[in-house]
Amino acid sequence: MKNLKLANKLDEQGKKRETEIKVKDLVIGRDFLIIGGPCSVESEEQIMDAALGVKLAGGNMLRGGAYKPRTSPYAFQGLGREGLELLYKAGREVGLPIITEVMDTRDVAMVSQYSDVLQIGARNMQNFSLLVEVGRTNKPVLLKRGLNATIEEWLNCAEYIMNEGNEKVILCERGIRTMENYTRNTLDLSAVAAAKTLTHLPVVVDPSHATGRIELIHPMTLSAIMAGCDGLEIEVHPNPSKALSDSEQQLTIEQFHLLVKDIGKTVEFRNSLEK
Amino acid sequence: MKNLKLANKLDEQGKKRETEIKVKDLVIGRDFLIIGGPCSVESEEQIMDAALGVKLAGGNMLRGGAYKPRTSPYAFQGLGREGLELLYKAGREVGLPIITEVMDTRDVAMVSQYSDVLQIGARNMQNFSLLVEVGRTNKPVLLKRGLNATIEEWLNCAEYIMNEGNEKVILCERGIRTMENYTRNTLDLSAVAAAKTLTHLPVVVDPSHATGRIELIHPMTLSAIMAGCDGLEIEVHPNPSKALSDSEQQLTIEQFHLLVKDIGKTVEFRNSLEK
Amino acid sequence: MKNLKLANKLDEQGKKRETEIKVKDLVIGRDFLIIGGPCSVESEEQIMDAALGVKLAGGNMLRGGAYKPRTSPYAFQGLGREGLELLYKAGREVGLPIITEVMDTRDVAMVSQYSDVLQIGARNMQNFSLLVEVGRTNKPVLLKRGLNATIEEWLNCAEYIMNEGNEKVILCERGIRTMENYTRNTLDLSAVAAAKTLTHLPVVVDPSHATGRIELIHPMTLSAIMAGCDGLEIEVHPNPSKALSDSEQQLTIEQFHLLVKDIGKTVEFRNSLEK
Amino acid sequence: MKNLKLANKLDEQGKKRETEIKVKDLVIGRDFLIIGGPCSVESEEQIMDAALGVKLAGGNMLRGGAYKPRTSPYAFQGLGREGLELLYKAGREVGLPIITEVMDTRDVAMVSQYSDVLQIGARNMQNFSLLVEVGRTNKPVLLKRGLNATIEEWLNCAEYIMNEGNEKVILCERGIRTMENYTRNTLDLSAVAAAKTLTHLPVVVDPSHATGRIELIHPMTLSAIMAGCDGLEIEVHPNPSKALSDSEQQLTIEQFHLLVKDIGKTVEFRNSLEK
Repeated sequence: MKNLKLANKLDEQGKKRETEIKVKDLVIGRDFLIIGGPCSVESEEQIMDAALGVKLAGGNMLRGGAYKPRTSPYAFQGLGREGLELLYKAGREVGLPIITEVMDTRDVAMVSQYSDVLQIGARNMQNFSLLVEVGRTNKPVLLKRGLNATIEEWLNCAEYIMNEGNEKVILCERGIRTMENYTRNTLDLSAVAAAKTLTHLPVVVDPSHATGRIELIHPMTLSAIMAGCDGLEIEVHPNPSKALSDSEQQLTIEQFHLLVKDIGKTVEFRNSLEK
Repeated sequence: MKNLKLANKLDEQGKKRETEIKVKDLVIGRDFLIIGGPCSVESEEQIMDAALGVKLAGGNMLRGGAYKPRTSPYAFQGLGREGLELLYKAGREVGLPIITEVMDTRDVAMVSQYSDVLQIGARNMQNFSLLVEVGRTNKPVLLKRGLNATIEEWLNCAEYIMNEGNEKVILCERGIRTMENYTRNTLDLSAVAAAKTLTHLPVVVDPSHATGRIELIHPMTLSAIMAGCDGLEIEVHPNPSKALSDSEQQLTIEQFHLLVKDIGKTVEFRNSLEK
Repeated sequence: MKNLKLANKLDEQGKKRETEIKVKDLVIGRDFLIIGGPCSVESEEQIMDAALGVKLAGGNMLRGGAYKPRTSPYAFQGLGREGLELLYKAGREVGLPIITEVMDTRDVAMVSQYSDVLQIGARNMQNFSLLVEVGRTNKPVLLKRGLNATIEEWLNCAEYIMNEGNEKVILCERGIRTMENYTRNTLDLSAVAAAKTLTHLPVVVDPSHATGRIELIHPMTLSAIMAGCDGLEIEVHPNPSKALSDSEQQLTIEQFHLLVKDIGKTVEFRNSLEK
Repeated sequence: MKNLKLANKLDEQGKKRETEIKVKDLVIGRDFLIIGGPCSVESEEQIMDAALGVKLAGGNMLRGGAYKPRTSPYAFQGLGREGLELLYKAGREVGLPIITEVMDTRDVAMVSQYSDVLQIGARNMQNFSLLVEVGRTNKPVLLKRGLNATIEEWLNCAEYIMNEGNEKVILCERGIRTMENYTRNTLDLSAVAAAKTLTHLPVVVDPSHATGRIELIHPMTLSAIMAGCDGLEIEVHPNPSKALSDSEQQLTIEQFHLLVKDIGKTVEFRNSLEK
């Protein structure tokens, strides 16, 4: 894939390489990443309950949206800075690093003060100004694949970030838009396997947005592991039916708990195969 | 999903059900199905070598195209009836049931004399006359999902076959066409998980046509198993670089052998999780 | 476009060419083709009223489905041979040549006895056996583009027909399936302009299936003319709200009448530009 | 279409309305808009030649990219502020208002000092921070439809801008991404006709990016007019083969001149039909 200099699987000597990204005690690319948490931070109680649930279930990173990209200007837009503060506090309280989305170049520095990992959403994948701006921080960046982006475009966006000096990029497949409408999007797991052969970056899968259906999250999560991913990002809410956004695809803490158990077994099984 | 009477997961009492389909000693839906063989039957030697390789590697059904749907009228169209005879002979010789595509209503009776399972190709998924015709035989039918068919359309095509009296339908996901062109198609594994919740029919995955890339077949095969499939259809050729069609996506017999080993372990692991 | 020998715009000397196809008094490719009529033939009265309406409005060919490709086996499948007879009778009565879809290789000879033009539906575009069979008749064939077919695949299907000796192929763009769901399909008018530069075959547009919305048919019809098409196929029904299929996209005879007037003016305007 | 309050075709009394947007002497929505100019501003000489060519041919607005969203960070990124200054100067010199893309919230105020119309590119259609920011200026905004955006999403983005107080929004259809790869994108003219029935905003078509092929721009331009558009945005370059970006789809000044003539006639013809 031309134009892939920094993200290329092969180094200049033609040797394959893997990237490991340190976030507090976690080493992404070596430790299997399990990000859990609600779509949006809604209140102190909600994010606290979620954080505790994620931690106890065995998740190792906490997510929660403070700035929400919504189709309509009249939909809930997130709590903004207050949401960031609540997320930060919840993460500290339970001892989990946090990840949240940044949508505006002007917010990058501020969000970086709170969040351990910066998330670039699917709709902003080709917001090149934003890519450049997060590329100038020293925070790890989780880059979601656009709804209609080719693998090549996605990897070029990683290259944009790395080209500014920040090589701590984590790729995230979250489903592409196709003619299928039974699922919210179409989870493209071959893109995960392909990205692992084309780049040295860790690749994470978000089965929640990809499927939009509770009953498909469990099988797709295990499926993603066998496709070779380095981690997962899963929406978990203490009370999904009351959620202010994405209520139909967030797991309960109990469902997440059961899922994490099977994640652990499947990662272990995968490792046993590779030997 | 409305209009799904016969294929519906739930019977009239609202109980979940699973279908098992007997093909010689094999019980599809209970025994994990591993179909291997070349894209096209090319010669007696080629199909014989393939059959032996598939059998020794642990495959339990032999595939091979005799009538080939090709984009251009000037491309190799398959050996026709001669191909059928060679495939039949090879299957008998090594003790494997066979599967091959039928493209024309007028050929259904004749192909049924040779083949243990009838395959409906992706381009003919909505060839309703053909669906009706195979629905009037007593042969199991493997129904490939169309390149751009929704899950609902696919399951309705199964219903067409069953509505004629033949309930022995096997669904096959083989990749859908999307904007992505790094892979030949986009393997939609959530459709597999979805089909397992919506119908009682066995679901098979074809990672060869889905990815079109040798290096992605191994991970996508294991990924498909964790998505819940009941079997796989994989292109294997004694000498892929000399193949008359699909030369870039057929495994060597050695590659297939290694893959079947991991298939076995992964199915066993999946079964252990379900307990 | 490789593999396009017979359909190629350029002859062997590299000169551009155009095909004209004679159907009774009509010369397709020279006379602007206006096909009107209902989605399905439903009864003698219905098709008679439609035929008379189409004729009086200025249409020059009558359509009506006797064999209907429907997503579900439980939907109205058409009147079959009885429908053919009614369509034939109605066409004769009002003096219009007729066109109807053939779906099964075994029906080609029989349908050819009734119909002046054979239609291959979008779902059967790559039913290669059917293409070969209509290629062995001497009837003009209207080949609809598949819901997800590339221009190259579409033109190769024309080549399949021509390769059997029947060069009387008319291409028909009827909308492709995309992520857009406000319209039933997405009318791809650049494919019309492209097909006119790539082949010498007449190209017809079907705005009814493409849009699936009454209010968009008028503008899209005029738009199609300026893209360079040689004709139109439009669904007209004496009483659309009572139609057994496609009730939301069939014009009334009055709407069709007004549309044909504007078609005439627009074709005339287009011809004036070319001078 | 729910959530469409400000952009809705119907006012609160249920009456249809049309928006007119004044830009210098031009009234968009009443005067037919013809935007011409190069993909990128490359040098003083280049943009000056382009401006003069566009003006003499009959264009009434000048385009030129100063900030370029490019797939790879290693591709030409535009001249930035220098490009803006050159574009501004060229517009003044020949007496044409100018339009250019803004990609970063931080640049909105600055770009507004130069440009008469702000363009939001397809990749930034759902960059909601940017929409809000241009919604706080008093500059007309041309909003390109995203490569994979539904009509509903597109109109909701207009609503985002209007919700901030800036009602001067111009919609622009520039082709969506489909499985077709003969054309660069697929021009969705039914979206133009649909947008005209759903909103009161002017709708412009960009046939250059939609087709990516010189020979299709002429027919698609005339086709777009009959679909009901209020204007066009067309790439014109004094020397296309030397262009630093999009060299294969920019018209020469001579080609543009011929096209503008036919645009004039077609708009006049369309107006005559409506009477």
